[in-house]
Amino acid sequence: MSPAFALHPWMAERLDRVEQALSQWVPADAPAGLGEAMRYAVLDGGKRLRPLLVLAAAEAVGGHGGAALRAACAVELIHAYSLVHDDMPCMDDDVLRRGKPTVHVRFGEAAALLAGDALQALAFELLVPQDASIADAVQARLCRLLARAAGHDGMAGGQAIDLASVGLALDEQQLRTMHRLKTGALLRGSVLMGAACGEPGPAATAALGRYGDAIGLAFQVVDDVLDVTADSATLGKTAGKDAEQDKPTYVSLMGLERARAHAADLRDEALSALAASGLADTRALAALARMVVDRDN
Amino acid sequence: MSPAFALHPWMAERLDRVEQALSQWVPADAPAGLGEAMRYAVLDGGKRLRPLLVLAAAEAVGGHGGAALRAACAVELIHAYSLVHDDMPCMDDDVLRRGKPTVHVRFGEAAALLAGDALQALAFELLVPQDASIADAVQARLCRLLARAAGHDGMAGGQAIDLASVGLALDEQQLRTMHRLKTGALLRGSVLMGAACGEPGPAATAALGRYGDAIGLAFQVVDDVLDVTADSATLGKTAGKDAEQDKPTYVSLMGLERARAHAADLRDEALSALAASGLADTRALAALARMVVDRDN
Repeated sequence: MSPAFALHPWMAERLDRVEQALSQWVPADAPAGLGEAMRYAVLDGGKRLRPLLVLAAAEAVGGHGGAALRAACAVELIHAYSLVHDDMPCMDDDVLRRGKPTVHVRFGEAAALLAGDALQALAFELLVPQDASIADAVQARLCRLLARAAGHDGMAGGQAIDLASVGLALDEQQLRTMHRLKTGALLRGSVLMGAACGEPGPAATAALGRYGDAIGLAFQVVDDVLDVTADSATLGKTAGKDAEQDKPTYVSLMGLERARAHAADLRDEALSALAASGLADTRALAALARMVVDRDN
Repeated sequence: MSPAFALHPWMAERLDRVEQALSQWVPADAPAGLGEAMRYAVLDGGKRLRPLLVLAAAEAVGGHGGAALRAACAVELIHAYSLVHDDMPCMDDDVLRRGKPTVHVRFGEAAALLAGDALQALAFELLVPQDASIADAVQARLCRLLARAAGHDGMAGGQAIDLASVGLALDEQQLRTMHRLKTGALLRGSVLMGAACGEPGPAATAALGRYGDAIGLAFQVVDDVLDVTADSATLGKTAGKDAEQDKPTYVSLMGLERARAHAADLRDEALSALAASGLADTRALAALARMVVDRDN
C-alpha cells in the first residue's frame, strides 16, 4: 500500500460519474412535477459518501463497474429519500438541507412525501436493469442488501428508535443500536453492495462488513460532534438541532473529547479490518475512512 | 373452460395463504413500535385483490408457487404503504380506512410515514430471499416489475397527477392517464408478476398485460361509481370524498350510467384478452375480472 494514494483525484473522477449517472437516471419528465422534486432532492448536493463507498469496495474486489455505478446511485437515492421524509414537519421539521430549502418547503409536503416514495422505488429499479452483462445473481444480491439496509431492520428501524427516544436517557448501548440501524446500516450496506459486484469470498466479505460497521458508527459519532462544534453554514443544515430537541447523542453521553477519541478508535478499527481483508488494494477505502473522521461537515 | 368454476372456495384458500404469509413476514418485533404500525397497516383488512391477481396469473402460467406467494405479499405491501401515505394529513387527510382509524390517527404522523417507508423496503426484500429454489432471474424480474409499477412511471407518478389535478377539469384521456398510473400500474404489475413466476412466452404475456390494463382501469371506474353510490360503512372508508374534494372522476366526467357501462366494457376486454392468451386455464383470472366490476365495496 503506497502512502501516496491521492484521494481527491480518485474522488473527483468517481463523483463526476455518479453525478452524471444520477442526472441521467432521476427522470426530469416524471408526471406533474414529481421529477422536478425528485431531482431537487438528489442533484447538486450531498457528499456522496455512500456512492464513494460502493465504488471503492467494488474496485477493491474487482467488481462489475456498471453494476457498481447502479448500486452507488441506488444507495444515494435511498439516502436522499430518507432526508426528504426526515425533514418533513411531522419528523424533524427542518427547513434547510445542503444549504437549500428542504423539499417540502420548496414543493409542499404532499410532493415531498411522493418524491421520497418514488426515489425509494427508483433505487430498486436501478438495480435490476434489463442488462444481461449484469448477472441475475448480482442484481438479486444487490436488491437483497439494499432492502435490508433500508428497511425495518435497517435505516427505517433506526429512525423509529430515534423518534421514540427524544427526551429519553439512552445509554451508550441503546444509542449504538439506534445508530447502527439509522445511519450504520446504509453505510455498511454501501460497502457490501460494492463487494457484491464481485466475488470476494467470505473472509474478505466479512472484513469489509467490519469495515462498514466501524465507519458507519464513526460517521454518526462525528456527526454528533459536528452538530455541537460546527455552524449551520459549514454543515449546510441547521446546527445544534440535537441539543435543542433534547436528542441523545454521543456528545451528550460521553462528552466532546471522549466522542472525538471514540471516532478515531473506530477509524482505526476500520483500517485494521481492511488490513485483514486480504484484498490487494484497499487504499481508497482506507482514505474514505480517514475522511469520514476528519471531515468538518 | 368450465362455467362451474367456483371463485369463492378458490379465493378462500389463497386468501388464507396470503394472510398467513403476511402475518409471518411483516415483523412484529421491528424496533420502537414500527412493527406494530406496519402490521396494523397490512393485516386484518383489505380485499387482497392484488395478491389474488398475482396468484391467479401464476397458476395460469404454471409458475413457481413460492415465488408467487412472495410476489403476492410484496404487491400488497406496496398497496398498503401507498394507503398509509395517501391517508396522511398532507395528502387526502382521511381518518377511516377499512373501517378502522388510519395509521397516522392511531400511531401518529411520523410513525405512519416510517411504517409506509419500511413497508416499501420490505416488499422488495420479500422478492429476493436467499432461496435457491427461486431462480435469480425470477427474483430480478419480479423486482423490476414491482419497482416500475410502484415508482414515478407507475403508482407514485399517478398520485402526483392526482394531487396536481384537484379542482382541474381533466378530460377522459387525462383521467385515464392518471388512473393507468395511480391504480392501474400496480394491478397490471400484479398480473405480470404472477406471469413472471413462470415462462409464459411473449404472446401470453402480452395478453395478460392487456387483461391487466383492462381490469386496472375497470377497478378505478367502479371505485368512482362506488364513491357516489355506496355508504362509508359498506366501503370501509369515507364515501363521497371525491366530490367533496372536487376531484375529477369517471362519474363526474361521463355520468353514473355511462361509467357503469364503461366498466362492463372493460371487463369484457379483460375476458377477451384471456381467451386470446392461449393459456389452458384462466378461470380464476376471469372470475376476478367479473368480481372487480360487480363488487359493492
